[in-house]
Amino acid sequence: MPNPIEKIKSQVRRVSAYTLNAVETKIKINQNENPFDMPEAIKSEVLARIAKRPWSRYPSFVPSELLETLAAFANWHSDGVLAGNGSNELIQALLTVTVQPGVKVVISEPTFTLYRLLVEILGGEVISVPLTADFQYNTAEIEKAAESADIVIICSPNNPTGCRLDDQDLERLLENFSGLVVLDEAYYEFARKSVVELLGKHSNLIVLRTFSKAMALAGLRVGYLLASPELTREIAKGKLPYNVNFFSITAAMVAIEYFQQCLQPLVDSLISERQRLFEALLQINGLKPYPSEANFILTEIVADMKPVELMSSLQQEEILIRDVSKYPMLGRHVRISVGTTEENDLLLSKLRLIF
Amino acid sequence: MPNPIEKIKSQVRRVSAYTLNAVETKIKINQNENPFDMPEAIKSEVLARIAKRPWSRYPSFVPSELLETLAAFANWHSDGVLAGNGSNELIQALLTVTVQPGVKVVISEPTFTLYRLLVEILGGEVISVPLTADFQYNTAEIEKAAESADIVIICSPNNPTGCRLDDQDLERLLENFSGLVVLDEAYYEFARKSVVELLGKHSNLIVLRTFSKAMALAGLRVGYLLASPELTREIAKGKLPYNVNFFSITAAMVAIEYFQQCLQPLVDSLISERQRLFEALLQINGLKPYPSEANFILTEIVADMKPVELMSSLQQEEILIRDVSKYPMLGRHVRISVGTTEENDLLLSKLRLIF
Repeated sequence: MPNPIEKIKSQVRRVSAYTLNAVETKIKINQNENPFDMPEAIKSEVLARIAKRPWSRYPSFVPSELLETLAAFANWHSDGVLAGNGSNELIQALLTVTVQPGVKVVISEPTFTLYRLLVEILGGEVISVPLTADFQYNTAEIEKAAESADIVIICSPNNPTGCRLDDQDLERLLENFSGLVVLDEAYYEFARKSVVELLGKHSNLIVLRTFSKAMALAGLRVGYLLASPELTREIAKGKLPYNVNFFSITAAMVAIEYFQQCLQPLVDSLISERQRLFEALLQINGLKPYPSEANFILTEIVADMKPVELMSSLQQEEILIRDVSKYPMLGRHVRISVGTTEENDLLLSKLRLIF
Repeated sequence: MPNPIEKIKSQVRRVSAYTLNAVETKIKINQNENPFDMPEAIKSEVLARIAKRPWSRYPSFVPSELLETLAAFANWHSDGVLAGNGSNELIQALLTVTVQPGVKVVISEPTFTLYRLLVEILGGEVISVPLTADFQYNTAEIEKAAESADIVIICSPNNPTGCRLDDQDLERLLENFSGLVVLDEAYYEFARKSVVELLGKHSNLIVLRTFSKAMALAGLRVGYLLASPELTREIAKGKLPYNVNFFSITAAMVAIEYFQQCLQPLVDSLISERQRLFEALLQINGLKPYPSEANFILTEIVADMKPVELMSSLQQEEILIRDVSKYPMLGRHVRISVGTTEENDLLLSKLRLIF
C-alpha cells in the first residue's frame, strides 16, 4: 500500500512550515502588535453590537457595509475592496489565482516570509532581489528582475527592516512593468504615507492593509485589499465565502468609526516612541539600530553576542524580542517592536546592563 | 500596455464565482443554520472570557488548548487535528497542498459546490460520479473512478441531498484506494453517526467537521480537520498562521464545554422536527421530499411549478428556502432547512396553500 503522504505535492513536502515558538513574557515586543490594546470605548461598543446579533447565522455573503466603510476610509471604490481573515488570507487568495508552475514572482528579501512560502507551495518560482547593504530597496535591480517576471511583491514599510519603497520608484515600476505589483502596506500608518492614490492611475497595482498593527486588532484577524474592480473580482474567486466572521466585521467597523478619536493618538505616540527608542539604541555600544518607518526597529548586534543569546538574556528579564538571524543578510540582527514608554524604558535599561 | 487581468490564471477567469443573493426574511431556512441561535448561557460565558483578553495580540500560533479540546471531543489525537476559519478553509488548505495540473479528484455530484470550484482554480481535474437516480452514493462507480484518481471527496451526509455513504462502502474504498479520501462530516450530528473511529485504521482518511450547523456558530466560522499526524503536518502548510481568531477559539471551546447540556437537546429537537416535516411534506400533493440524515430536506416539485417560482412565492410570505435547480440532476428541486417547530408549521401552512 503506498504511503498516503505521497499525495502531498513534492514542493509542499520540501518547504518547512512557518513556525513560531510560544513563549509568554510580561513584555511582548516580538510581533509588532499595538502595545496599548484596543481602547475600552471600542471594545464595549463592539461587545454591545455582537450581543444583539444571532451567532448561528452566517455573516453576509458580501460584507457590503464593511467594504463601504473601508472604501470611504481608504478613499477608494467599494467594488475595488476585499476584506480578509487577516491580510495574509488576501495574499493567499491573490497568489492562488495567479501562481502556478511557470509563474515568476519577484520578492525583495529579507522580507515577510509568507510571500515566498505561498509562492513555493503554489509551484511558482521566486526571483529574489536582495535589499542594498544598508537595507533599502534596490529599485534598479527590482526593475531588471521584473522584466522576466509576472508579479512583484513589496512590503513597504518592509518587515523586518523598516525601509520604505520610494514613491517615484514605485511609480516608475508601475509604468514600466506589465505584470502585477503587490504593495503590502501593513505598516503604512507608522510612515504616515500611503500609495493608495496611485490606484486610480495604475490598474496593475494591488494594495494590502491590515488591522493587526496600528488598528490594534491582531487577535481578530482583519485585513483588506485594494485594487481595480476588475482585478478584485478575479482575486475574490481565490478567497473563501464567509471568510470574515461577524465579530471581526463588527470590530473593524467600530475601529474605523473611532479611529481618529481613539487609535490615531496611539499611533502618534508609537511614532514618537520609535524616534526616542532609535536614538537611545544608537547610544548603546554593541547595538546598531536601522532607521524605520514602521513600528519596530531592526537592530544589528555589533558586539560579540549572537541574536539568540540576546533574545534569551532578555527573555529571562520577561522581555520577548524577535531573533531574525535566519533571514537572509540578517545573521546578526534582532527585530524590536516599539512598545509603550514604560516597556521601552525597561528594555533600554536591560540592554544597558547587557552591553 | 497588456491588461493586468491577463496575469490571472485562465482556469480562474473561466470559473464563475460562488455567489448567493442576499435576501432578508423572517424565516431563513436556506443555509442549514441552527435555527435556535447559540444558547444565552454560552454567549454570556464567551463574552465574559473575551472581555478579559487583549484584542491587539495575535492568537496563539498553534491554538493548542482548542486542538486538545477538539481532540477529546472527537476522540482522536490532538496532533492529528487542525482548526480552521470554517471547514471551508481546511478544504482549501488540503486541496492547496495536493492539487495542481495533472491531479484528479473524484467528486460525487450533486454535492457542495466549493469542492469543484477549488479543484478547478488549483488546476486539477474533477471526475464527477453522479448519485443514483434516488440520490444515493453509487459506491461501485466511485470505486471505479477512483482507480485513476488521487483524491476522493465525499460529503456525508450529503449537501444538498441528505444521503449518507454507507460505513462498509467507505471502509472498502479506504482499503482499496491508494489515494486520499476526504469525508466531509459537516452534518454528522444529525445522522448520529461518525466515521472518526476509522481514522485509527486508515491513514488515507481525512475527516472534516464544522461548528456552523449543529454547533450554532455559523457567524463565527470554525471548522476542524482530523487525520493522521503525518498528513496533518503537511496540510497545515497550506493553512495560514493565526487563521482562527481568539473570539472564535473561545466560542468553540465554550460550545464544546456546554455541548451536552445546551446544544445536544437542540440537535435532538431538529432530528424529530426533520421527521415530522418529512412526513408532512409527503402529504402535500405536488411535493416529493427525500429522506435526509442532515438538517435539511431535498424536495422535488412534482407539480407544474418551477423551483424559482416556489422560492419567490414563499419569499413573499417571509420564508427563504434554497433553489438548488442549478445543481446537476436537481432541475426540479429545492432544499429546505429544518427550522424550529413554529417555523416548520408556518412553512407547511404556506405550502398547503400553494399546492
